[in-house]
Amino acid sequence: MGYGNIGRYAIEALQAAEDFEIAGVVRRNASQVPAELAGIKVVSSLKDLDSVDVAILATPTRKVEEYALEALAMGINTVDSFDIHTKIPALHATLKAAAEKAGKACIISAGWDPGTDSMVRAILEACAPKGLTYTNFGPGMSMGHSVAVKAIEGVEDALSMTIPTGQGVHRRMVYVQVKPGFDFNKIAAAVKADPYFASDETHVFQVESVDAVKDMGHGVNLVRKGVSGKTQNQNFQFKMSINNPALTGQILVSAARAVLRQKPGCYTMIEIPPVDLLPGDRDRWISHIV
Amino acid sequence: MGYGNIGRYAIEALQAAEDFEIAGVVRRNASQVPAELAGIKVVSSLKDLDSVDVAILATPTRKVEEYALEALAMGINTVDSFDIHTKIPALHATLKAAAEKAGKACIISAGWDPGTDSMVRAILEACAPKGLTYTNFGPGMSMGHSVAVKAIEGVEDALSMTIPTGQGVHRRMVYVQVKPGFDFNKIAAAVKADPYFASDETHVFQVESVDAVKDMGHGVNLVRKGVSGKTQNQNFQFKMSINNPALTGQILVSAARAVLRQKPGCYTMIEIPPVDLLPGDRDRWISHIV
Repeated sequence: MGYGNIGRYAIEALQAAEDFEIAGVVRRNASQVPAELAGIKVVSSLKDLDSVDVAILATPTRKVEEYALEALAMGINTVDSFDIHTKIPALHATLKAAAEKAGKACIISAGWDPGTDSMVRAILEACAPKGLTYTNFGPGMSMGHSVAVKAIEGVEDALSMTIPTGQGVHRRMVYVQVKPGFDFNKIAAAVKADPYFASDETHVFQVESVDAVKDMGHGVNLVRKGVSGKTQNQNFQFKMSINNPALTGQILVSAARAVLRQKPGCYTMIEIPPVDLLPGDRDRWISHIV
Repeated sequence: MGYGNIGRYAIEALQAAEDFEIAGVVRRNASQVPAELAGIKVVSSLKDLDSVDVAILATPTRKVEEYALEALAMGINTVDSFDIHTKIPALHATLKAAAEKAGKACIISAGWDPGTDSMVRAILEACAPKGLTYTNFGPGMSMGHSVAVKAIEGVEDALSMTIPTGQGVHRRMVYVQVKPGFDFNKIAAAVKADPYFASDETHVFQVESVDAVKDMGHGVNLVRKGVSGKTQNQNFQFKMSINNPALTGQILVSAARAVLRQKPGCYTMIEIPPVDLLPGDRDRWISHIV
């Protein structure tokens, strides 16, 4: 459901997997069928598809609850990559009730952060219960911050890059394409005053084309130093350098596999046994990677 | 059960945790009670302890099955850090049958490798299903290799260090304390011919005191480069630099918490939801680290 960046990459991950069939794509304008969807059913409502086991919600985050409730009410399991950390507990509670009523399951916030990073954070808490974890993002494009800049008057297009400066502190580098007749300096001041940017070191630059500088690569450097039992100075680090929507699309597909293996209810990724994300029998993985 | 290095650190992890009570320590010679166990019941058999929920098996790996079967037969859940990768499926099958019969649960191979590294490997398979994972160990002391050297005639004490040379290939640096009257060169040749060392680049050195060069720190550098969907070149890295038995003791204690939350059966760490390793309510962790 939804066919933006993440939906596109989720389709690729489904095509690359050995154990999925694509029932169809649900998008607002079902008559627009891009070339790469040839042979795939494209419809404007989930009701127009048959035999759906799982709905992968590749919709904007603020639409996740609405579409998840619709799918669950139809008896369809769901997965999503809802990414507003502070609102996860509320979504969890709402969808838990709906999923249990429907006798179905959903996995929420199944991206890389929240998502697989959350699983790594939980494992590191188990390894060293006392200590600090810092999740450093980037360098990479922040979708939320870019959207906030695009909403400012006079902005044609914008890219906000997240640059890690250590200990979970980030610098924002903002690239703005200005509409004719608007003043770049006023826009730059508005960006720095925006709540998204006000508490971070922010630099704003004017560019001729945002498209020419856009790169969907992203990175994480997650660091924990802590105490195992009474032993100090245990050091852990998880790094990745990845194509952002490709990884999100892939994790949604792995979660779509896992959701079919859960009892009715709602789950975040830290509540899922890692092996449930993988194809085939558990025994194969126990021999292979344990 | 067992009070070597890992048992000692497991006791510290239990004392540092908020949600455990130590029922007692089982060791062969129960009359030997080290100072740090003052106030803790030390017995020679599990049968001499009351109200045990979980037995933490800090015994040699080859004794795990025997002690696990004994505990399960008494209706006691178990956790262990069984570390012979190739024999995990067989242990899994044996203990699964015993655990289901007893209506109890066990978590096997709950150390850092196998263990938490296995969880990370599973998560990375879910992130990038095609590709290669290399687990590079060290620099650090290999218990198994050190024991193999100690078994050679004329060896008073030995330390085998694992040095990573990349892509999961390792060099062995072996430090030997020779018994009076034995020939170091013969010992060095025997080490290099031993199946533990025959396929690796191995260097053997004579030292006056193994104790003087022993350091229980260890490290891992786990690397995966793979494909998410159809997107190549996704890069992941998990590193740690840790006190080896302290981390193993801590993970055993975190697993002891998780085992009480599983249905009867036998589990490896990839079959455990990460949140089950952590103290207190799930909801707290969903708000806190997802």
